[in-house]
Amino acid sequence: MKFLHTADLHLGKIVSGVSMLAEQEYILAQITNIAEEEQVDALILAGDLYDRAVPPADAVKVLNDILVKWNVELGIPIFAISGNHDSAERLAFGSQWYESSKLYMKGKCTSQFDGIPFMDAEVWLVPYHEPAIIRQAFADNSIRSFEDAMQAVTKQIRSKWDTSKAQILVGHAFVSGGIPSDSERQLAIGNVDRVSTDCFDGFTYTALGHLHHPHAIRHPSIFYSGSPLKYSFSEANDHKSVRIVELEGKELISVTERFLTPKHDMRIISGTLAELTENLVENPDDFFQVNLMDEGALIDPMGKLRQFYPNILHLERKKQTLKETQDSFEEIMKKDDLELFGQFFEHVNGTELTETQKQKLADVFEQARKEDAE
Amino acid sequence: MKFLHTADLHLGKIVSGVSMLAEQEYILAQITNIAEEEQVDALILAGDLYDRAVPPADAVKVLNDILVKWNVELGIPIFAISGNHDSAERLAFGSQWYESSKLYMKGKCTSQFDGIPFMDAEVWLVPYHEPAIIRQAFADNSIRSFEDAMQAVTKQIRSKWDTSKAQILVGHAFVSGGIPSDSERQLAIGNVDRVSTDCFDGFTYTALGHLHHPHAIRHPSIFYSGSPLKYSFSEANDHKSVRIVELEGKELISVTERFLTPKHDMRIISGTLAELTENLVENPDDFFQVNLMDEGALIDPMGKLRQFYPNILHLERKKQTLKETQDSFEEIMKKDDLELFGQFFEHVNGTELTETQKQKLADVFEQARKEDAE
Repeated sequence: MKFLHTADLHLGKIVSGVSMLAEQEYILAQITNIAEEEQVDALILAGDLYDRAVPPADAVKVLNDILVKWNVELGIPIFAISGNHDSAERLAFGSQWYESSKLYMKGKCTSQFDGIPFMDAEVWLVPYHEPAIIRQAFADNSIRSFEDAMQAVTKQIRSKWDTSKAQILVGHAFVSGGIPSDSERQLAIGNVDRVSTDCFDGFTYTALGHLHHPHAIRHPSIFYSGSPLKYSFSEANDHKSVRIVELEGKELISVTERFLTPKHDMRIISGTLAELTENLVENPDDFFQVNLMDEGALIDPMGKLRQFYPNILHLERKKQTLKETQDSFEEIMKKDDLELFGQFFEHVNGTELTETQKQKLADVFEQARKEDAE
Repeated sequence: MKFLHTADLHLGKIVSGVSMLAEQEYILAQITNIAEEEQVDALILAGDLYDRAVPPADAVKVLNDILVKWNVELGIPIFAISGNHDSAERLAFGSQWYESSKLYMKGKCTSQFDGIPFMDAEVWLVPYHEPAIIRQAFADNSIRSFEDAMQAVTKQIRSKWDTSKAQILVGHAFVSGGIPSDSERQLAIGNVDRVSTDCFDGFTYTALGHLHHPHAIRHPSIFYSGSPLKYSFSEANDHKSVRIVELEGKELISVTERFLTPKHDMRIISGTLAELTENLVENPDDFFQVNLMDEGALIDPMGKLRQFYPNILHLERKKQTLKETQDSFEEIMKKDDLELFGQFFEHVNGTELTETQKQKLADVFEQARKEDAE
């Protein structure tokens, strides 16, 4: 058996005000080509199909169209779950009808998990869930953490599975030690949202979604596919892919990456305004974070850069190395206004105040003090 | 062939801040019973399944559950379209999978309308559409009005239909002469949103949604089912129902109403506060508009009434008959403040100012004038 594992499509996502929908349609078509070339027996979508609970209507159309393409036109069985960005109820709508054509879409966790027999395997769909959902569904008040919840779920699964078959779990969770990117919207404080790899002991292949880096975790049988597109600049160095997973009987034979080429890459470039506008970097219509290395004030750098790089999403000015030691409160209190402002100016701009600037500021402070006194 | 025609479920509707979802589940269960008793061959849902484009998640669940009940569990074919309250794209999601179990859900109008062969009939699904949708789909700039659009659609249908079969049109539109209720949210000015009955010439049965009164129009083959529940007090006198339609071959044999009994009725009651709180009307937990007939001021009448009638949605004070003739501007200018206020008081309260009230007011005016002069 051979299947394609992807996740975190985030259809309808908007990055820095720019809709990713055209990029997403482009990459979905590429996934279609890979699925056809590889002649996979099934597709796994491990959550976050949409970017939000109520996706825009055009994102709804894109998901419908690609599922029709894969499942109805190409006849590929699909195993899909909802992620933390999806609305479990909305995604679950219609799932009773989908099953007749082997589109298995599980939106909500319930008290009973049932394996879906598929070729030499059983597939277990475990949608994203807060601990409270499982606590309630299992009527077990001892379930407090994400770890408790996942342990309870997989314990139930192990009590039911057919050990003569390969066991595939499709989940959407944050495995301890995994490397998150900026686009997963960290909401949890500390590590309460983590689950250990132990939860998935015994599964032949655990197909995860949630973390966007394709190598967010290193484990022989637990894999994040990573998102098919970069959704934040912390993913700029990722090479996005989908995974092709092969099993022979109940043995996992190979897990390979098929790389994806985005319509527009998401990259970080650095240089002075002059350098970047005189010598254009390759593919200037990619999505850029530009780190401008100029010192001092610049007039409308974004306007100037946009003439050459239409898709700049983010502009950063050169970061100065901060002073390692910070002044103590007492030291700060000793300084006068001009000294304090000079320090702030240097921190932000990386240069000291010139004598002229100092003089002008001194005049301003003097003026302000006079007005205060009146 | 025998089918059940309903429309305008408006799942998720909120009336005066009160969710109708429990009422809706109750009435849907009643429709299920009727469908089973009548052993209908199909169900028609003529639009406005939801109350808004993005319905709340619990309304999504209610629609999914009832469609599963009707179509999957009871095996009843369903013909459904989107209404003006629905999002065509969102409702259309998944429709490709539904068809295999004869759930025909049409969200969007396209350039081609195709009949669905069903027993001795062809069924044509015509979702709600603004004229611009058909103008674009048909690439016909002469389509300007709702009438033009519907004429174009039904002209195309007539060019394709099989005249040896019964022809059933499922639509969501405002037919000229139809009687609207307050809950259809009139947005059009004048009659531009109307279509004539001529549009539906030749159809054996036209199953409409949009107007909520079950007898919004009188015509031998064009019928509104009306909404299954009252959604405004202008519908208080309706007796809500679903229609059971029988055909024999291509002949329309009978159109009957099966009445529905809501969990809580929506009624208008009148009386003084004393009357209504001393002699309770029947079914005091119905949804009420209360017309209070008391004159003069009342302290917290809503609070007092709610102790007996928990589900009051609207309270109105007795309307006084307005003076037929209005004073001319010159006459008004001649009156002093006290006279003018007295007139206003009488208009609102239906009683004249007492001598004490007049004296107090005169004092207030005097005081105000003094302060003004200072």
